[in-house]
Amino acid sequence: MKNAIEGVSAQTLKRIPTYLTYLEEQKALGKEYISTPIIANAMGLSEILVKKDLTSILTTSGKPKVGHNIQNVIDEIKYFLGVHNETKAILVGAGQLGSALLGYKGFDKWNIKIEAAFDKNEKSSSKKTGNIAIMNVNKLRDYLLNNDIQIGIIATPVEAAQAICNIFVDCGIKGIWNFAPLVLQTPDDVVVQNENLASSLAILSKRLQSK
Amino acid sequence: MKNAIEGVSAQTLKRIPTYLTYLEEQKALGKEYISTPIIANAMGLSEILVKKDLTSILTTSGKPKVGHNIQNVIDEIKYFLGVHNETKAILVGAGQLGSALLGYKGFDKWNIKIEAAFDKNEKSSSKKTGNIAIMNVNKLRDYLLNNDIQIGIIATPVEAAQAICNIFVDCGIKGIWNFAPLVLQTPDDVVVQNENLASSLAILSKRLQSK
Repeated sequence: MKNAIEGVSAQTLKRIPTYLTYLEEQKALGKEYISTPIIANAMGLSEILVKKDLTSILTTSGKPKVGHNIQNVIDEIKYFLGVHNETKAILVGAGQLGSALLGYKGFDKWNIKIEAAFDKNEKSSSKKTGNIAIMNVNKLRDYLLNNDIQIGIIATPVEAAQAICNIFVDCGIKGIWNFAPLVLQTPDDVVVQNENLASSLAILSKRLQSK
Repeated sequence: MKNAIEGVSAQTLKRIPTYLTYLEEQKALGKEYISTPIIANAMGLSEILVKKDLTSILTTSGKPKVGHNIQNVIDEIKYFLGVHNETKAILVGAGQLGSALLGYKGFDKWNIKIEAAFDKNEKSSSKKTGNIAIMNVNKLRDYLLNNDIQIGIIATPVEAAQAICNIFVDCGIKGIWNFAPLVLQTPDDVVVQNENLASSLAILSKRLQSK
């Protein structure tokens, strides 16, 4: 199975989870095989694009007439995404958005675990959201230095975000998922994924106005 | 000023809010002009890409040596995104994620207003999150037929999402912002923007493993 990101475009990468979601739905409906045109039609993509995406991530190809074995494709996509390796994350900023992320059920499926959360308003480590302890942010550096964490999630107000980012970087975190609306300054070897909810909605609004 | 989406790629569109955020930060720091190389460096993009992006959305070009007038670029980007027109949205699913969206401060800046929210657990219209009334979802259809709403936000569990989407479509909603992890079936004239938080984190994890 392929397990490299080389040759897979950022756009393909963004579509992969949607393929997985769709294929799992089809499997749950009892289907065993699926063809590229059917996937393309359901997802509103061109057949050429779907064929190109699947070729870039799969090692097996579909059978003539019947198409792809759905379970095989699901297994290959999960392997490609590294779901077999657990990823450990921590979150800073346990306000409304941060709490929503802590309570979000969807991460398990991807073998991603939020191990701990930090907030400036926590005086003790006794408060919990779900099963996750929320600690005072002044314990963040110690925690990161003593635990093997791959991803840091920033759900703080914009004013605090760069300072938290700096602590992450100092403590060797190489992946940051940033919900604060600012451009974080990081070294080149740190991967930042920005999630700007307001601008997503603004883009939808723009797409709508242009129709 | 340009106000069309034609000739602007989806990738450029996704970067526009980040340009805007960065430029507003620079303006707040008292800067008046900025050059393409400085923007490119701060955002971790190539100069060619930044030049291409700005050319596709701006009607004015930068001055030799000093670069772009920051305020002009901000104004042009906002006009391009249609921020001068108010967009009205409603939200269905006022659980943890939905409540976080209702409490989110970032939408104002884009002139987007969430007018009302609906949840299956609301028996009356008395409960409020922020200033937004939460109504029983059985009032959704009536509300949409009697109010001018452009965008429907789906923050329900996955099982309920397609049924809510169908009500949106029936009532003439043309833009859907979907947080449920499924591929919504919609007519071609409806724009769906999917926001899959878990898969965003999975992609970050994948990018990290591949470094």
